[in-house]
Amino acid sequence: MNSRGTGSEIERLIQLLGKLPGLGPRSARRAVLHLLKRRDSLMEPLARALSETARTVHACSICGNLDTADPCTICTDPKRDTGLICVVEEVADLWALERTGAFSGRYHVLGGTLSALDGVGPEDLNIPKLIERARNGSATEIVLATNATVEGQTTAHYIMDHLASDTVKVSGIAHGVPVGGELDYLDDGTIAAALKARRPI
Amino acid sequence: MNSRGTGSEIERLIQLLGKLPGLGPRSARRAVLHLLKRRDSLMEPLARALSETARTVHACSICGNLDTADPCTICTDPKRDTGLICVVEEVADLWALERTGAFSGRYHVLGGTLSALDGVGPEDLNIPKLIERARNGSATEIVLATNATVEGQTTAHYIMDHLASDTVKVSGIAHGVPVGGELDYLDDGTIAAALKARRPI
Repeated sequence: MNSRGTGSEIERLIQLLGKLPGLGPRSARRAVLHLLKRRDSLMEPLARALSETARTVHACSICGNLDTADPCTICTDPKRDTGLICVVEEVADLWALERTGAFSGRYHVLGGTLSALDGVGPEDLNIPKLIERARNGSATEIVLATNATVEGQTTAHYIMDHLASDTVKVSGIAHGVPVGGELDYLDDGTIAAALKARRPI
Repeated sequence: MNSRGTGSEIERLIQLLGKLPGLGPRSARRAVLHLLKRRDSLMEPLARALSETARTVHACSICGNLDTADPCTICTDPKRDTGLICVVEEVADLWALERTGAFSGRYHVLGGTLSALDGVGPEDLNIPKLIERARNGSATEIVLATNATVEGQTTAHYIMDHLASDTVKVSGIAHGVPVGGELDYLDDGTIAAALKARRPI
């Protein structure tokens, strides 16, 4: 037993849960007590779901999406446009795009952004496979949907440069005022980008 | 596959994690991706810790504390005063008191508060066992440390009434200005309680 009066099993569980994003030591303690009150309905199902998911879910060898199937269900979906490939930084971005239901092509997950400071080069990301996919003939358009951050845009430019000589069309998602956004609350960069990208209506 | 483009395993894990206090659907998604990137170092250890803790940690049959041992390590600690019993609402409160290192007695965890609205009576809480402990001879003082809320104080009063005829001494922890607290930022009730409980210095 430690000074807290909790057994080492509970202490270890608090430490592990506290490593999740969004949970600190205090909320991890609350979560453990919440779980111990719901052993059968939550704690054991969660333990099984974690070990099951760790065992069965893997990165798709084509696009990098996470799925139990390889190639993933998006890559093998016959209803999706094989020519259209949307490039995203992380699986979370793929999920965000899928939630909109506005994209009917396939994806390519880079697994991060280029970063000279952190020593992340193109070979550390899923970039060589993207260039291979873009050149193997079936791709007609590559949509760059990396984040509108310096790193995201640097990575997008790098990919653009390497595909410029190919026949494939390269596009980027639009930057501007978010739907429902008020100009007064937006940063100057977004307003400037929205002005620059103005279109006739 | 669902509309989100995520497999059912991942979807189920997001749902289960989202039931933890402090994690909503968005942070549960982030947590799952965080876990899938750390399969060996976090995801599998967490799954094992959850199932291990669910299997081995139980409520102490004397005080209601959570431990792998029964009676718990606090109840069997020979260095602790057997006569002093601190009554708390939840195990989280016991942990909070233990972190201070300021209490050398034993505990009694009620498992909640009396609530006429929610239909929680004394027999739904650990109260009969507390009265039994108070009367079996070894207890000399019962320290009521339920929360300073209406429910906590109602529960404390109920216990006080039932122990008034016994020889055991009943006390309550002090209410007042928190250490480091500024009067200007405190609610009226706390300031009034601090004034009423003023002591000569």
